[in-house]
Amino acid sequence: MMNELSQIISQIEPVDPAWLARAQERLDSLTKPPGSLGRLEEVAARYVAIRQDPMPELQTKWVVVFAADHGVVAEGVSAYPQEVTAQMVRNFLAGGAAVNVLAAHAGARVVVADLGVAADLSGLSPGAAGSRLALCKVGPGTRNLARGPAMSREEARRSLEAGITVLSEEAERGLDIVGIGEMGIGNTTSAAAITAVTTGAPVREVTGRGTGLGEQALQRKVQVIEAALAVNHPDPRDALGVLAALGGFEIGGMAGAMLAAAARSIPVVVDGFICGAAALIACGLEARVREYLIASHQSVEPGHQAILRHLGLRPIFNLDLRLGEGTGAALGIVLVEAAARILDEMATFGEAGVSNA
Amino acid sequence: MMNELSQIISQIEPVDPAWLARAQERLDSLTKPPGSLGRLEEVAARYVAIRQDPMPELQTKWVVVFAADHGVVAEGVSAYPQEVTAQMVRNFLAGGAAVNVLAAHAGARVVVADLGVAADLSGLSPGAAGSRLALCKVGPGTRNLARGPAMSREEARRSLEAGITVLSEEAERGLDIVGIGEMGIGNTTSAAAITAVTTGAPVREVTGRGTGLGEQALQRKVQVIEAALAVNHPDPRDALGVLAALGGFEIGGMAGAMLAAAARSIPVVVDGFICGAAALIACGLEARVREYLIASHQSVEPGHQAILRHLGLRPIFNLDLRLGEGTGAALGIVLVEAAARILDEMATFGEAGVSNA
Repeated sequence: MMNELSQIISQIEPVDPAWLARAQERLDSLTKPPGSLGRLEEVAARYVAIRQDPMPELQTKWVVVFAADHGVVAEGVSAYPQEVTAQMVRNFLAGGAAVNVLAAHAGARVVVADLGVAADLSGLSPGAAGSRLALCKVGPGTRNLARGPAMSREEARRSLEAGITVLSEEAERGLDIVGIGEMGIGNTTSAAAITAVTTGAPVREVTGRGTGLGEQALQRKVQVIEAALAVNHPDPRDALGVLAALGGFEIGGMAGAMLAAAARSIPVVVDGFICGAAALIACGLEARVREYLIASHQSVEPGHQAILRHLGLRPIFNLDLRLGEGTGAALGIVLVEAAARILDEMATFGEAGVSNA
Repeated sequence: MMNELSQIISQIEPVDPAWLARAQERLDSLTKPPGSLGRLEEVAARYVAIRQDPMPELQTKWVVVFAADHGVVAEGVSAYPQEVTAQMVRNFLAGGAAVNVLAAHAGARVVVADLGVAADLSGLSPGAAGSRLALCKVGPGTRNLARGPAMSREEARRSLEAGITVLSEEAERGLDIVGIGEMGIGNTTSAAAITAVTTGAPVREVTGRGTGLGEQALQRKVQVIEAALAVNHPDPRDALGVLAALGGFEIGGMAGAMLAAAARSIPVVVDGFICGAAALIACGLEARVREYLIASHQSVEPGHQAILRHLGLRPIFNLDLRLGEGTGAALGIVLVEAAARILDEMATFGEAGVSNA
């Protein structure tokens, strides 16, 4: 019998290029020179092809923020203390974080998923502005990846399946697009390690300052990641093994959500660097997932470029963001909706009585 | 006695850097690492400093589309026939153009200003979705700039004053931000000529394919612009003279609107290449206008880079747009509002009980 993970993966179909062509045909009939809306046209066609709907409306939008803690903070790799992860989950539920503001601007609700925050969050009530907390803790934070695997293979699978469950629960009620983001003090260390292993880029080139490390702490972070690769020697062809070795639970959750969204033909707007590392895991498990991903922004974190290059994704915008949480994904939803509205609401040359070239 | 133009120019104050510092101080108190929202923070601070309001709300938003025709179309510089200008004005009023869709997405109303369309539009009724037509025709299109001045200095002044009037009428009713765009078959020729003269860049480097010229037509367009500069020999230090020599009426209207917005402390979101040429005229008349401009996007038109460099403006995004109409400005308003909402709606570290670095 197949487990939940294999079952979801088996349901992911390639995106039909005939739908891309059909969308472009309609775009070319609208009152504008062909191609003059640039990347908005590309995004609109991608959205239509994923949804298999020629005139799509984005009625239900979610930003899912996966949160978890990281044992590697013991190595001093973050500018902020670990308790900030739980404090920020409370902030997400109260509606006070950047992702709340930008999700509201996108007309999207915020779901926070606790995959492994090192604090008991079960007493927290559903938050302001319709946000929701999904409790699906795999453990109270990963182990220190510089000293051994961040989690077991079984825990890695459970984190992926938790992401599948969270996404599927939302999708049951109807979901037209999902933005994916994260919170987890220390998680740029995990993301850089996953990026180095999966893309083959040198650790030094994919390791950045995270929330604001100085030069010396940055050098220390590089050493920690090199130690993690030396002690775990993960195999880049084994995505589940890479996730288990290098963590974190929220990265597994994001990858699982991407798999589940692709299986249900729901476009996924990817946030920045850490979410990109989750995309590497998801695409390592099933390459077709890539066709369902829309990269929102180019992060300041240097490793993000290696990820985008490896996946062949071109981000929609570059605002020098480096916050995470799904803030870039929320803004990405705003732009995807703009693109979809072009298809729905513009007049054709014929309808408007405008002469063509 | 001062005329309307000099009077507006005399009212433009520099933007106070103390307000920029005050906005950054608040941004740094919010629950995110300092600077982690990148260019959104820069835009938020600029907006606050222009409005002199620490917690601004964007309640009233307009995109003003200035339309006019160009005598230079006689030289075969456009892929579309001249009647498209009037047809597109009808499309704007009926709500079927790209700018209508994107302005609606931004929560902005569309005002169309007829500065010199070569057709009688006085019978057109106010359009769908609250759009409005402002009738302020300076003439039925400019003269052919390849054979002599596009307009007289008096007409250039009238086009600027028409733009001042349109903006001022809207501002009377309250206006928190304005996006500026245009429609005018042939107007990339005017814009390229203005850009070459004002920035000193070679004509060949600032001339592009507009709505879609082939290679041969592009070469012809370069020759037409070189002929225009040879026959008119405009003085780059005389912005009114540059506008008169090279047109068009809608470019004058846009420049006038920028002056009036700056005089009333209203942030201006600038569209692409042709709107950028109007910014060159406005800043040539009064350099302080620049401090009120927010560049929305980097256009595909090659001359746009020379303009942005000359003005020292960095666009918010690059979506390979080349449509005009104010489409980029409308999307720019969406992002400026996102930035302003960050300031208004995010919790501080103290409010949220989150530990700082």
